[in-house]
Amino acid sequence: MSEPNAVRQNAVVAAVIGLGSMGMGMAKSMHHAGIDVIGCDIAPAAVDRFIADGGRGATTAAGAAKGADIVVSVVVNGAQTEAILFGPDGIAATMKPGAVFISSATMDPAVARDLAQRVEALGLHYLDAPISGGAAKAASGELTIMASGSRQAFELARTALDAMAGKVYELGDAAGAGAAFKMVNQLLAGVHIAAACEAITFAAKQGLDLDKVYEVITASAGNSWMFENRVPHVLAGDYTPLSTVEIFVKDLGIVQDMARAERYPVPLVAAALQMYLAASDAGMGHDDDASLARIYASLSGARLPDAKPKG
Amino acid sequence: MSEPNAVRQNAVVAAVIGLGSMGMGMAKSMHHAGIDVIGCDIAPAAVDRFIADGGRGATTAAGAAKGADIVVSVVVNGAQTEAILFGPDGIAATMKPGAVFISSATMDPAVARDLAQRVEALGLHYLDAPISGGAAKAASGELTIMASGSRQAFELARTALDAMAGKVYELGDAAGAGAAFKMVNQLLAGVHIAAACEAITFAAKQGLDLDKVYEVITASAGNSWMFENRVPHVLAGDYTPLSTVEIFVKDLGIVQDMARAERYPVPLVAAALQMYLAASDAGMGHDDDASLARIYASLSGARLPDAKPKG
Repeated sequence: MSEPNAVRQNAVVAAVIGLGSMGMGMAKSMHHAGIDVIGCDIAPAAVDRFIADGGRGATTAAGAAKGADIVVSVVVNGAQTEAILFGPDGIAATMKPGAVFISSATMDPAVARDLAQRVEALGLHYLDAPISGGAAKAASGELTIMASGSRQAFELARTALDAMAGKVYELGDAAGAGAAFKMVNQLLAGVHIAAACEAITFAAKQGLDLDKVYEVITASAGNSWMFENRVPHVLAGDYTPLSTVEIFVKDLGIVQDMARAERYPVPLVAAALQMYLAASDAGMGHDDDASLARIYASLSGARLPDAKPKG
Repeated sequence: MSEPNAVRQNAVVAAVIGLGSMGMGMAKSMHHAGIDVIGCDIAPAAVDRFIADGGRGATTAAGAAKGADIVVSVVVNGAQTEAILFGPDGIAATMKPGAVFISSATMDPAVARDLAQRVEALGLHYLDAPISGGAAKAASGELTIMASGSRQAFELARTALDAMAGKVYELGDAAGAGAAFKMVNQLLAGVHIAAACEAITFAAKQGLDLDKVYEVITASAGNSWMFENRVPHVLAGDYTPLSTVEIFVKDLGIVQDMARAERYPVPLVAAALQMYLAASDAGMGHDDDASLARIYASLSGARLPDAKPKG
């Protein structure tokens, strides 16, 4: 690995913490846009792949973040984000004064507000910036980012946002709004995937031509972005994970916790979450989320197209 | 009213039973396409409006159907369809031999199969042909029709289908398939409306800018045809019925009954149906189905845009 602190003259330095399918694409998008990017992941192979693409690597988050103007955190949830900032060897204590921390994980808005407050108390800036769009859009620098934070956080983050996103929604001047918009989206996305699986397997149970069902529904008022996107996985019997069951166990769980705390009833979320839990319990937690169709089929004897063997 | 049996020479004669917002549009579309149309409704004012548009009227279904080559039934459900065919003064006994009955109502596929069998036993033809698209598309002859039936039923119905529909899906050679496709669509549509209302009111509960929520979600993976179409009613506080709560009390009820009979679990449908029932019980049964948002608000203290006074 190259030395993380050997910074190019005059270039903005960005650290990316977490080089999964989203973080890797975001790191590469920034690198290709001319930003000096240091990538870090707990898996050394991921860091090596980023270095092979011309980036710089670091073995620890603290090492990556130390000289960075911008730190982009692309981890799974609020707890991991907090650990990166404030856990053992947390980066908050060693980040460059005045740098901005861009948080991409989906989390409860209350957690985002708390993290922002603690980061800002240290003289750093925090942008609450959940992402949407999947790995392909991450790789092409065309993500949708739902962001909120101070004017200064936006200004400091601008170079990175421009490189990573096709669309940046500016949703307010404080952390929490970005997270809240993302949770509204996840509520709908999670329910719509479950509804798509409930419907296509209901069609299978009746012996309908499922390709024809897909054609008719995608042209009708029953369509959703998720029906259109996920049902082809069921028709192909291909449950290779593009987005996993566990993602929605997590995200609908956050919605349910928020709703419970706010005394807000979410009967559809509650029903959908049970199906994600059933799929996870059946060993499909790390399969594609369209696997809920297989749960509906197993509960009812409906015949879906055979699942391909795992590659 | 003009005499229903004074048929123009050589013209195809079609009767339309039920001149509600859908049936009136369908009758006018056929009339404008040069078909000799006789309209019938239990409300004399509706018949008068059709006559004013240049059509012919009849006071009874039997009178309208007697000389018709094509009878289009545009009523609410399977029970009304059965009453028109086989009730007191039912038209099945007096329809012209070899004529085709086009059934538009949403119903259990088993009911459609039963009606078709009984109609065909009398030497008539039956096209199972539920419609989708709303009143505006009915008026402009651009409905989507999900049809199944014998080749002969399709051939006899063709002139009428061409006049009424922008798109006719031919879904099989026997009644039941059209109804089944429609029920799959209604399952999704009904769940998506409830999900849209659950989500937009969840956003309101968090104090988000709801116009911005609409902008972000309609460009994101959480979007659905119904979210895009119905949430503007909530944002405008306008619950003038374009499609009523009672429609989905009925249609999700049919899905639930079908699913129960087939031993197929529909947890999302079950949860959504409770919200339609709550809205109906709150006196909103004949308001727009986006009224579910008002139920979520009343259960949680969320503030939605004020509802406009009823016109």
